[in-house]
Amino acid sequence: KTHIDCVTSQSMFRLPGLIDVHVHMREPGAVHKEDFKSGTAAALAGGVTMVLCMPNTAPAIIDSDSLQLAHKVAKEGARCDYGLYLGASATNYSTLAGISHDAVALKMYLNETYTTLRLDDISVWMKHFENWPKNKPIVCHAESRTCASAILLAHLCDRPVHIAHLARKEEMMVVKKAKANGLKVTCEVCPHHLFLTEDNHMSDGRSSVRPRLVTEEDRQCLWDNIDIIDCFATDHAPHTDEEKSKNPGPFGFPGLETMLPLLLTAVNDGRLTLADIEAKLHTNPKKIFNLPDQPDTYVEVNMDREWTIPYAMKYSKAGWTPFTGQKVKGCVSRVVLRGQIVYVDGEILAEPGYGQAIATSSAGREESNVA
Amino acid sequence: KTHIDCVTSQSMFRLPGLIDVHVHMREPGAVHKEDFKSGTAAALAGGVTMVLCMPNTAPAIIDSDSLQLAHKVAKEGARCDYGLYLGASATNYSTLAGISHDAVALKMYLNETYTTLRLDDISVWMKHFENWPKNKPIVCHAESRTCASAILLAHLCDRPVHIAHLARKEEMMVVKKAKANGLKVTCEVCPHHLFLTEDNHMSDGRSSVRPRLVTEEDRQCLWDNIDIIDCFATDHAPHTDEEKSKNPGPFGFPGLETMLPLLLTAVNDGRLTLADIEAKLHTNPKKIFNLPDQPDTYVEVNMDREWTIPYAMKYSKAGWTPFTGQKVKGCVSRVVLRGQIVYVDGEILAEPGYGQAIATSSAGREESNVA
Ligand SMILES: [Zn+2]
Ligand SMILES: [Zn+2]
Ligand SMILES: [Zn+2]
Ligand SMILES: [Zn+2]
Ligand SMILES: [Zn+2]
Ligand SMILES: [Zn+2]
Ligand SMILES: [Zn+2]
Ligand SMILES: [Zn+2]
Repeated sequence: KTHIDCVTSQSMFRLPGLIDVHVHMREPGAVHKEDFKSGTAAALAGGVTMVLCMPNTAPAIIDSDSLQLAHKVAKEGARCDYGLYLGASATNYSTLAGISHDAVALKMYLNETYTTLRLDDISVWMKHFENWPKNKPIVCHAESRTCASAILLAHLCDRPVHIAHLARKEEMMVVKKAKANGLKVTCEVCPHHLFLTEDNHMSDGRSSVRPRLVTEEDRQCLWDNIDIIDCFATDHAPHTDEEKSKNPGPFGFPGLETMLPLLLTAVNDGRLTLADIEAKLHTNPKKIFNLPDQPDTYVEVNMDREWTIPYAMKYSKAGWTPFTGQKVKGCVSRVVLRGQIVYVDGEILAEPGYGQAIATSSAGREESNVA
Repeated sequence: KTHIDCVTSQSMFRLPGLIDVHVHMREPGAVHKEDFKSGTAAALAGGVTMVLCMPNTAPAIIDSDSLQLAHKVAKEGARCDYGLYLGASATNYSTLAGISHDAVALKMYLNETYTTLRLDDISVWMKHFENWPKNKPIVCHAESRTCASAILLAHLCDRPVHIAHLARKEEMMVVKKAKANGLKVTCEVCPHHLFLTEDNHMSDGRSSVRPRLVTEEDRQCLWDNIDIIDCFATDHAPHTDEEKSKNPGPFGFPGLETMLPLLLTAVNDGRLTLADIEAKLHTNPKKIFNLPDQPDTYVEVNMDREWTIPYAMKYSKAGWTPFTGQKVKGCVSRVVLRGQIVYVDGEILAEPGYGQAIATSSAGREESNVA
């Protein structure tokens, strides 16, 4: 059983509600892997009160109809607050700006991963960089040299870019140098790149993820440059235990329920501070994505609770976790979202539908019926 | 027979000695494909009086010893003037600056091609961009997104970069936008990307080249943006007829003897001017690579001579050409290099050893015994 008893005599701290800017809810289209109900329960169990949801669903979220469909299923299922991404396709660069007020950001898939949205032609990237509103982020799955090229395009179009799941030393070196030069680039790093490496003793199918698990040198470089990392983000990308037992397995890991315990363990180990967690999971995400405040919202964590990550966490439909067996110290004890206790001592109290679409800020935005 | 009779009653024009900034002489190491004797004969037959020679030989030109070896064989064999590239390796970034005075530029191989020098780790690129003297070009084999990433790194290191053999529309769009933003980027385009496409009716082995032959849309884009192209360059990369008859064949085409006839044909067709040829094969290469003047050096071309490119041109050891069968109008009739007639009506008059190493301009340069 994954229920964790957080004894209140232990040392408790309060964090603001965490914001995970990179989550795959799998709904619409693959609700056997996850849906808004299960995925947002996993979020709350992990201290995450706001999720930004990726558009590589089925259908992919690339136009008005699919965006409204995603808003509908999110509104019905979500237990925590949420924003939705639009996805860049090879043809939708001239229409996205017109519906951007109902999305929190644009996602561009520029490398191989679990999606139908990969863009190979830089001419197309450039049109998206030119047309998407400058006050809303463009988030790129852009590894290695692709990361550098996405940064160039953003710079040439005089607009910011956010690099998803930065994982490698070379990517860190480029982002660091770009920041030193004053370029408008931000980045997120995932727990699995901070806490796992390619030497992980999982089967190929199970360890399959994009970006791949990295070398120990890469992993160490992420920790050595923790100040360059703007956000932590799970890239929660659940596939079922059965799907991941195959070779090759689909790309992706669940992560919402394990991120904060792993980070709290790092705090206990002196490699991180609670202020780092607040900065990279609350303050910076709000700033980069122009996110509204969640009033009366906070997370109570128990810094002393020692436990071992089980085979599967309780709420995600994934039914497995790549962190199984890791000893951690620290857990989420209570989560309050907009004045309501939504999670306490292992139990989710928020109903589906309690979550709200975040009010996205865009000049000329009309309040739509979905927000 | 490839001997071409240029009748002097036809319309003759004089061009300055052409500079080909991208040539593979295959010496040292693969002299059955080409050597300085044969390759510089091909150059002169094509109106090229100065060649800049790539470092992907055997051994590769990546340190002092290999550079001196290349200078030695070049000095013995060359019939036209020449400069030598150094090659960036994964380990030589801290030593190249010290021998840069004997090289004309640094070549970085960032994609798959005919070389042992490919660099995959951007951290290494960055060290080369930081360490190589800013007054000497860095030339990158950098296709597609790699082109954009090389431009970013150069920009972050506040130094110029020259993109070798730009071929695709997406590369052109990036370079165009970078130039419009004032970034220090220049580029060259090869005749085979201007005059051939992927629909070329050659066998796979024979048409194998990097960058690949492009689509008609890409090709048209190059012509539509002729003003963005700083240099024409052959990327003369000979392999023998027998080697290219295999599948897969090694990457590369010969090009020195066919470039100018193809370009003169484009002038006759009204798609180009002789001023374009002078700019892109003389003035701009001199400027970008800081090349010295060749006194009393010029090329006489016959604009009226119509002929068909044969199975093989006369001087390259390649023994085949991808342009075979193309009808062209225009030929080289006479070449004068430093006051001497070195080519006339199909015959090479310059002996091996007549060619000189170009005096490379670098602060603190000592005249070495090879120059
Ligand atoms: Zn991704
Ligand atoms: Zn993702
Ligand atoms: Zn706050
Ligand atoms: Zn090349
Ligand atoms: Zn700039
Ligand atoms: Zn080449
Ligand atoms: Zn001149
Ligand atoms: Zn020297």
